Amino acid sequence: MMKTLEVDLGNRSYPIYIGTDLIDQPELFNACEKATSIYIVTNTTVAPLYSERLTKTLEKFGKPVRIIALPDGESYKDWKNLQLIFDDLLKFGADRQTMLVALGGGVIGDMTGFAAASFMRGIRFIQVPTTLLAQVDSSVGGKTGINHPLGKNMIGAFHQPVAVIADLNTLKTLPPRELSAGLAEVVKHGAIADAQFLDWIEANAKALLACDTDAMGHAVLRSCEIKSAVVSADEREGGIRATLNFGHTFGHAIEAGMGYGEWLHGEAVGCGMVLGADLSCRLKRISKADVERLTKIIHSMNLPIVPPKFGVKRYMELMQVDKKTEGGQIRYVILEKIGKAQIESAPDALVKETLSATGAA
Amino acid sequence: MMKTLEVDLGNRSYPIYIGTDLIDQPELFNACEKATSIYIVTNTTVAPLYSERLTKTLEKFGKPVRIIALPDGESYKDWKNLQLIFDDLLKFGADRQTMLVALGGGVIGDMTGFAAASFMRGIRFIQVPTTLLAQVDSSVGGKTGINHPLGKNMIGAFHQPVAVIADLNTLKTLPPRELSAGLAEVVKHGAIADAQFLDWIEANAKALLACDTDAMGHAVLRSCEIKSAVVSADEREGGIRATLNFGHTFGHAIEAGMGYGEWLHGEAVGCGMVLGADLSCRLKRISKADVERLTKIIHSMNLPIVPPKFGVKRYMELMQVDKKTEGGQIRYVILEKIGKAQIESAPDALVKETLSATGAA
Repeated sequence: MMKTLEVDLGNRSYPIYIGTDLIDQPELFNACEKATSIYIVTNTTVAPLYSERLTKTLEKFGKPVRIIALPDGESYKDWKNLQLIFDDLLKFGADRQTMLVALGGGVIGDMTGFAAASFMRGIRFIQVPTTLLAQVDSSVGGKTGINHPLGKNMIGAFHQPVAVIADLNTLKTLPPRELSAGLAEVVKHGAIADAQFLDWIEANAKALLACDTDAMGHAVLRSCEIKSAVVSADEREGGIRATLNFGHTFGHAIEAGMGYGEWLHGEAVGCGMVLGADLSCRLKRISKADVERLTKIIHSMNLPIVPPKFGVKRYMELMQVDKKTEGGQIRYVILEKIGKAQIESAPDALVKETLSATGAA
Repeated sequence: MMKTLEVDLGNRSYPIYIGTDLIDQPELFNACEKATSIYIVTNTTVAPLYSERLTKTLEKFGKPVRIIALPDGESYKDWKNLQLIFDDLLKFGADRQTMLVALGGGVIGDMTGFAAASFMRGIRFIQVPTTLLAQVDSSVGGKTGINHPLGKNMIGAFHQPVAVIADLNTLKTLPPRELSAGLAEVVKHGAIADAQFLDWIEANAKALLACDTDAMGHAVLRSCEIKSAVVSADEREGGIRATLNFGHTFGHAIEAGMGYGEWLHGEAVGCGMVLGADLSCRLKRISKADVERLTKIIHSMNLPIVPPKFGVKRYMELMQVDKKTEGGQIRYVILEKIGKAQIESAPDALVKETLSATGAA
């Protein structure tokens, strides 16, 4: 089974392949034909699982294939580990025609993408996302970067991959916590853009949690369709793309406040959506029933729905530094209704109510 | 006196202003009107000279203006010092509408540009080059970046400024060595693109070394015209833009081999052009008389014309890691004739002859 989807970005357009056993199919990696060398960037958890198979696939292009394995986890998404990629590229003579292949989750994809964006001012890369979060979200759209001690993804670039290859089989080895974290972004896509898809998610929660291939295939495909349509319309997040950050203003505050790596990104986003929905209700857009339903769906995916109790002051501080602020004003993604979102600022008083009501303060 | 030149890059086009006392003219910085805050990035040498005047000019926009002063020199063009910019931006609440203003030479311009390219995945910046090298070369064209221990400018981005403001008065305070280093790039523009301009340079060497405002105004303007025409035709260096690297393959090897900061970039490029001309002659493109004339012009600008004696092996190693290699092949900028250049590889045997003949081996 394989489905192909095109992200339409003019001369930077690229295909997303979704299916089973894709990492064994050299023809999907055809962009490597013009490469002088190929570097698989992965982490020490994923490497033993798939790097040998992927190496075998890539060696068919007759170019040197090397593996760079970074430590695993969000806490390593920093300059120090990015530098390890540059060190190896330079040590082994990579050049402007070198291809990077990101094999792993969102951290590996973001770091590899930023390495590709910055190495010699830009080389090509392919995304091979092996986590659900990366398949439904971070591998698509060209956002790349690393964290700064004062904020998540503060340093980065927009740099589109030349292909995304989402092998559903790799999800079978995911720890349940990581699977749930990915489902948070799937729920998000329904919540902000497609009420019918949210109905489907609600009805198929069990199949998704069991990582059923058909259900997962549909969830990944529909998520990529929604995300790539938004990205095509607004690549650099001047407008509508920011709605993809639903749950992220609160979520980033949770991640930063806990220390990166304590909560998974998807867990923080899941919980952040509970707060975002509550705030949308206080702004009189969606009903209490909508909030309860969304909270229940998030909960059904085994995601946390009660935020850490940092208190109002700390949350406001943490959100202040988020990239979504403008002139000091925090910007929130607000649900107009289930399936439709927009960006706006909100009165601090209402935000405080949300923080209190949800247990954050 | 002020001349305006437009770098034509579609919706990323921007003006270059060349003249006297420009840093006192707020209207040239009009792009700051939409900024939420303004950060002047400079170094500890330039800050005492111009940061107060520039701050006064920028404060007219009614936004907070802050100064970030880095240590001065090519050896500080690294991640650690780039991080100091990010630290201050985040500490003081910079956001996506923040404007950076690079006040200084090539190092400050390259670092500020890369900081602007990477901070929150891209914010705007203005170049206020205060060295000749920066005014005639590095501030124009959007190349930004930092050095890696294994190679110069290895990490970076293409990120265009929103304006370049070249105040000729700032050149008056330049140490003679820095002025000569800048003249190397002026000579380069004549050599690769405009034989008549090279004649003019030859005839006006004394006025240029004396930093005569009229002569300098013409040298900066014509250099910016040549460079911006090349950049407009080939922004991301797929072809003709690479001819601007004349003297740079050898020059980067000299800089890296000596340790960054020992030779000024322009000095290394000046000497690198002597080697590039010698190689062009061995490839039977230009005459021995052309090589001698170009060497004499470079020498007349008080630039070194004898390279450090690293030996053949070390030079080849150092050039191998340069960004201009492709599949392990070193690419050289070769003069077809005075005023015309192109990129090609060259037989190692000839390169070795050049290294021996010029004193490098």
